[in-house]
Amino acid sequence: MHSDQTSLELLSQHHCFGGWQKRYRHRSEVLNCEMIFAIYLPPQAEKGTVPVLWWLSGLTCTDENFVTKAGAQRLAARLGMAIVCPDTSPRGTDLPGEHDSYDFGSGAGFYVNATEAPWASHYRMYDYVTTELPALTRAHFPVNGREAISGHSMGGHGALVCALKQPGRYDAVSAFAPIVNPMDCPWGIKALSGYLGEDRSGWQAWDACALVASGISTQPLFVDQGLADNFLTEQLRPERLEQVCHEHGHTLHLRRHADYDHSYFFIASFINDHLRYHARHLGLTPEPADA
Amino acid sequence: MHSDQTSLELLSQHHCFGGWQKRYRHRSEVLNCEMIFAIYLPPQAEKGTVPVLWWLSGLTCTDENFVTKAGAQRLAARLGMAIVCPDTSPRGTDLPGEHDSYDFGSGAGFYVNATEAPWASHYRMYDYVTTELPALTRAHFPVNGREAISGHSMGGHGALVCALKQPGRYDAVSAFAPIVNPMDCPWGIKALSGYLGEDRSGWQAWDACALVASGISTQPLFVDQGLADNFLTEQLRPERLEQVCHEHGHTLHLRRHADYDHSYFFIASFINDHLRYHARHLGLTPEPADA
Repeated sequence: MHSDQTSLELLSQHHCFGGWQKRYRHRSEVLNCEMIFAIYLPPQAEKGTVPVLWWLSGLTCTDENFVTKAGAQRLAARLGMAIVCPDTSPRGTDLPGEHDSYDFGSGAGFYVNATEAPWASHYRMYDYVTTELPALTRAHFPVNGREAISGHSMGGHGALVCALKQPGRYDAVSAFAPIVNPMDCPWGIKALSGYLGEDRSGWQAWDACALVASGISTQPLFVDQGLADNFLTEQLRPERLEQVCHEHGHTLHLRRHADYDHSYFFIASFINDHLRYHARHLGLTPEPADA
Repeated sequence: MHSDQTSLELLSQHHCFGGWQKRYRHRSEVLNCEMIFAIYLPPQAEKGTVPVLWWLSGLTCTDENFVTKAGAQRLAARLGMAIVCPDTSPRGTDLPGEHDSYDFGSGAGFYVNATEAPWASHYRMYDYVTTELPALTRAHFPVNGREAISGHSMGGHGALVCALKQPGRYDAVSAFAPIVNPMDCPWGIKALSGYLGEDRSGWQAWDACALVASGISTQPLFVDQGLADNFLTEQLRPERLEQVCHEHGHTLHLRRHADYDHSYFFIASFINDHLRYHARHLGLTPEPADA
């Protein structure tokens, strides 16, 4: 019986730049709970198929932050790109301590597959965002099979890891203010300890710097970082990604932006550069000049 | 002693499209309470003065909705336009019943000067948005004295009324899904009864349709309305504005948009048209084509 696995409940839809911003609930078998995700379908999806940009959000976010704050639909509508925004953790569960802190448990799935009890029975966000939700998307929406991935902070980490673990899977990857080295920053150590246990050898498969060093993928990385970001020096440390990419000859386009912080005002300011980058790699033609 | 009247407390600032999105608290003498407002200062404000677009928000909103959801900063930064977003009512007060309903009292000031007790001692949002806050803005920010006004729903009503009551005050006025005839719709009747009393003769000074009929102003009106708006037939009724403008030879550019609803997804979809309209009337040069 696959009906529960693949049925979608439409929660809301808004006409937006000639396309549709929609929100769905579905049963996730991977996460063993009900989940909500958002999808922007550009006008081009009315008549044909479109590529998908996956957007992974950061700590405390849901499917809604990017949708309401990033202002991405304007250009996505012109480019002909769908954008899917998953939630950031399993929901509706009540594991011990799950809701006690902003940086672990609910709202903080870190896009890994947990191995430690009790998290392993739900916190498999990597499989959810790379396998289950893409399959659901292909089954229900007019997508053409080409995909790119981006995200912010914890979601930037997620985007980099998803792409670096699967060479060729995404046509492009980018990130805003990503956690590039979770093995060695407070947020990451807390999350990886909890979800994967104390044996750090298992953490390398979920660390962008370690993945670059491993040489699994040669996909270029495009990263934007604000220099007024409160988390820059303790949690994000883009210089580490820069260093490991330099050492291993991995192409990294890292832009540092004076005065920009960690907020969605930063993301909104540069999202169009990312959309155009992904569009180019997704085989979309450049949009008309006036937007 | 004017120090309390004119001092501003900076609550937050975010670099955004090369400019600054800021949020301030100040003491309002007119409203007899502390108020918060938001201002977007485009990059051009670093080196010179810029015109101001006033944005009046709708029921239940604060200074934040437009700032986070409309995506207006992108084009405002290119045009060189500041945008000031006031709150939608006095705050921090606790009048009888003030917080009991979404469409009266807090979050629902309707941009009128109340005459009825107990509202008259605080609910003077018209004076606040047309006099006190503009004076504060001119005192504290590099603005050039030229102003335009727009808003959504209750704020669309506010924008139309502020402009129609003061010929020549604003270089342009526009509205999204405005309440055009509050004298004769449920939201408006509730608000005007409460703030102004049951004598309806006093309501005409706060009703866009009545103001057009009065002939005080000949300023053209630019209005966007979504046809999937849940409030279209009971509360908004743009055909009434259309009719009175037609009867009185008042220029109205009313656009009806199939499938668009009352949300900020509708506003985001068309805000650039409004920004360009205001920019033209504010004496700004057209922005470069690529945005």
